Amino acid sequence: MFESVELGQQVSKESYKEAVDQLRSQLITAQIACQNAPGPIIVLISGMDGAGKGELVNALGDMLDMRNVMIRTFWETSDEERQRPDHWRFWRQLPGRGQIGIFFGAWYTDPMRHHVEGNDSDLILEHDMRRIVRLEKMLADDHALILKFWLHLSPEAQKKKHQNLKKKHHESPEMIKRAMWHFDHYPRIRDAAEQTIRHTDRAHARWHLIDASHKRHRQLRVFTILHKALQSFTTQSHGPVVEDSVMEVETAPVLDSIDLSQKLTRDDYRAQLEHYQKLLQKRVWQAYKQRLSTILLFEGWDASGKGGSIRRAANAMDPRLVQQISIGAPTDEEKDHHYLWRFWRHLPRSGMVTIYDRSWYGRTLVERVEGFAHHAEWNRAFEEINEFEQQLIQSPTLLLKFWLHIDPDEQLRRFKEREVTPWKQHKITDEDWRNRDRWQDYERAANEMISRTSTREAPWHLIAANDKKFARIEVLRHTIEQMERLLDEVQS
Amino acid sequence: MFESVELGQQVSKESYKEAVDQLRSQLITAQIACQNAPGPIIVLISGMDGAGKGELVNALGDMLDMRNVMIRTFWETSDEERQRPDHWRFWRQLPGRGQIGIFFGAWYTDPMRHHVEGNDSDLILEHDMRRIVRLEKMLADDHALILKFWLHLSPEAQKKKHQNLKKKHHESPEMIKRAMWHFDHYPRIRDAAEQTIRHTDRAHARWHLIDASHKRHRQLRVFTILHKALQSFTTQSHGPVVEDSVMEVETAPVLDSIDLSQKLTRDDYRAQLEHYQKLLQKRVWQAYKQRLSTILLFEGWDASGKGGSIRRAANAMDPRLVQQISIGAPTDEEKDHHYLWRFWRHLPRSGMVTIYDRSWYGRTLVERVEGFAHHAEWNRAFEEINEFEQQLIQSPTLLLKFWLHIDPDEQLRRFKEREVTPWKQHKITDEDWRNRDRWQDYERAANEMISRTSTREAPWHLIAANDKKFARIEVLRHTIEQMERLLDEVQS
Repeated sequence: MFESVELGQQVSKESYKEAVDQLRSQLITAQIACQNAPGPIIVLISGMDGAGKGELVNALGDMLDMRNVMIRTFWETSDEERQRPDHWRFWRQLPGRGQIGIFFGAWYTDPMRHHVEGNDSDLILEHDMRRIVRLEKMLADDHALILKFWLHLSPEAQKKKHQNLKKKHHESPEMIKRAMWHFDHYPRIRDAAEQTIRHTDRAHARWHLIDASHKRHRQLRVFTILHKALQSFTTQSHGPVVEDSVMEVETAPVLDSIDLSQKLTRDDYRAQLEHYQKLLQKRVWQAYKQRLSTILLFEGWDASGKGGSIRRAANAMDPRLVQQISIGAPTDEEKDHHYLWRFWRHLPRSGMVTIYDRSWYGRTLVERVEGFAHHAEWNRAFEEINEFEQQLIQSPTLLLKFWLHIDPDEQLRRFKEREVTPWKQHKITDEDWRNRDRWQDYERAANEMISRTSTREAPWHLIAANDKKFARIEVLRHTIEQMERLLDEVQS
Repeated sequence: MFESVELGQQVSKESYKEAVDQLRSQLITAQIACQNAPGPIIVLISGMDGAGKGELVNALGDMLDMRNVMIRTFWETSDEERQRPDHWRFWRQLPGRGQIGIFFGAWYTDPMRHHVEGNDSDLILEHDMRRIVRLEKMLADDHALILKFWLHLSPEAQKKKHQNLKKKHHESPEMIKRAMWHFDHYPRIRDAAEQTIRHTDRAHARWHLIDASHKRHRQLRVFTILHKALQSFTTQSHGPVVEDSVMEVETAPVLDSIDLSQKLTRDDYRAQLEHYQKLLQKRVWQAYKQRLSTILLFEGWDASGKGGSIRRAANAMDPRLVQQISIGAPTDEEKDHHYLWRFWRHLPRSGMVTIYDRSWYGRTLVERVEGFAHHAEWNRAFEEINEFEQQLIQSPTLLLKFWLHIDPDEQLRRFKEREVTPWKQHKITDEDWRNRDRWQDYERAANEMISRTSTREAPWHLIAANDKKFARIEVLRHTIEQMERLLDEVQS
């Protein structure tokens, strides 16, 4: 989930200044217009320790006209507050119509902290999150605009912050202790954040993940999203809330982070292929004996080598244990059902391996880009798919999702090669050329898809595939690694 | 929650035959039209053991054209099914667009059974229900019509069925054992049903509670609701789902079940008033010491004697411990917030008593009837209020909800008395007369409100108030009884 905000994105001083100067007046204009908006604006700032939340809130104060802005921190609770239901302290601070409330953590802080401290189980977290979902739905139904920001730090970024802090706060052992605690609990915090975001990300109360490793980048991104949201909010009617009107925000270009120069020599490839295929064969039998199902799912550009990678993996498995499914256009019967129905249909029995050449992610890729699904449909598909995959994982199934990545030049080279190679000519059609023209649309869709459906238990494996040999070995290697991890878990 | 379906309603043989003859052709017509509906139709039949679920499904088979109807029972699981995620067996049986699937229990059966058997905690039930909500939302978003029927039996009705069953199945000890189990577990089953319904009742997948004590009544009611739903479904567009278009179904007349002839003599009244007021005074101090908050909330007809009952209760309490709140029209500031905001504002600190003369239920009464809230708003208010009250109860607060009931004749008598009594003239306005003209609308709204917001922890207390003396004593008695129950719980 956090892949797209662990890229360490930066903004130069000059472009920051230029952008901020422009945004300042745009924000004020939007803010004034918001006084006639249909409801209040709730901006919720959450995130990792040391990610600059305080600084951000101050910066927001500088950018906005503070006359109808309320900043609330919800730090220590008063006895007044402790003597009432938990949510009372948030209700009493809710902004009214046309007002902006900037909330520090708010209703997310305590449930997450209790979970990280290990006091509350996953079920309790889920219970608290359900309560929050109901609260936010209630407010959104009453025309509130709810913007939630998660300021994220990668493990490396947090380590760096942590080291700097030691220098900065040499006078304050309290602060160092606090930072140390967060540093030590990073994996648990990240995990709690992922669960929280997964449970509470809704079309009417969207989480915006922010790469917080650099100050100018994180602030600019928050200002930009806030401006976009205020702008689209003021043009909304006071009538029933229509989910389709939710604004779109560009996801960070996670695909760009893949190092496409990685390759293997022919000799290395041959040796590793033999080694990994033998190993895979063993693991697949072991998984069968343990009744552990496996799904390998391939998405990626046309001509990125999905077929070849699938063949190398499938060839290493006993055909009795493996099933390959190619996803094309749905049948008439499938069209008459929910789009997930045809994937439920083909779920393997336990102990088997199923390989999907393209998958349910079509909803968020081709159906989105080509307009076969309208905005509300593909937008809610992220949640629906996460829910579906959760059920797979709990059944239990090992779910491996591969994105095979190439650049446009490499694709062109392969298309041309296909056109002149007799046994490959059937693989290149007009449609491939048309899709190629929409490269940027597909790229945007893929970036968003990866960032919203990569979860701890079912992450996307991004495979550099400009070199086919390298890609094939990577797929085998990841598959074996994950199978071994799960087999170990089952045995212990 | 089950008040409105424990009335033991009956239908005569003649009116049943007449109604069914008419419904048969109406249902077939609607069913044919449904072949062009935007999605599938899912009819879910759940309910108490012995409530006639099987019989109902057979009767539905008789009424419908079976060519595009699938009846599915989900009884024993196959090994095929056990080797896949839980929901797989439901997905594989889902009807396609234009088809009707009649499901026995389906996804509700197992979670409820596990909960009743005591294997699963409330949190696990909630987790399972959240999963079901997501499933139903997903299907409804894809234009499925989801109708859920709960066939209910009151404790008395179940006892009777149980005795009859003993006679009928003298040959089958298995059936008697099964019935015995259900009979013994009645309170747990009822409780699990209430939790289940509360968690999963949504505008797009509504539960319909059916008084199942008599066969003709329960079947007629299901046929009628099904017909109404099919009819409104066929006229729906294939575009985005609009919640406001959800059909309305009349709730059973729970208010009619109140015996208004109950009264007290002056002497009995005086003696009991003194006795209960003294007792209440004690309990209120005990509650204060235990930090247990209490809310008394009064709704009811104009001139039903709310003020008088409130005075008798408040006079028994130390003024330092009690706060009275009269709910009138909201202020400007309150109008700029969510309608629940003003009730959150005034929540008492722990240990105190707050008395509401009218309350948050205005949303489902006056705002609904007078059109101040549109259909989607008052319709979702039931869930919002249940959620709000859950938080009160957990804080912990004792929540006592009183509906003071009189009949139209008694109201007229009191209105006229007010007009001629100098110190009561200010209490009667043109608005009172106008509201009186809409008696039936208010009655319908009150019936639905009571049946959808009466929960185990915060039931509605329906008070016969044609005799003011009787009503005042009833309010005191219920208050003391509930305070004592909770004080006992806190101490143990």
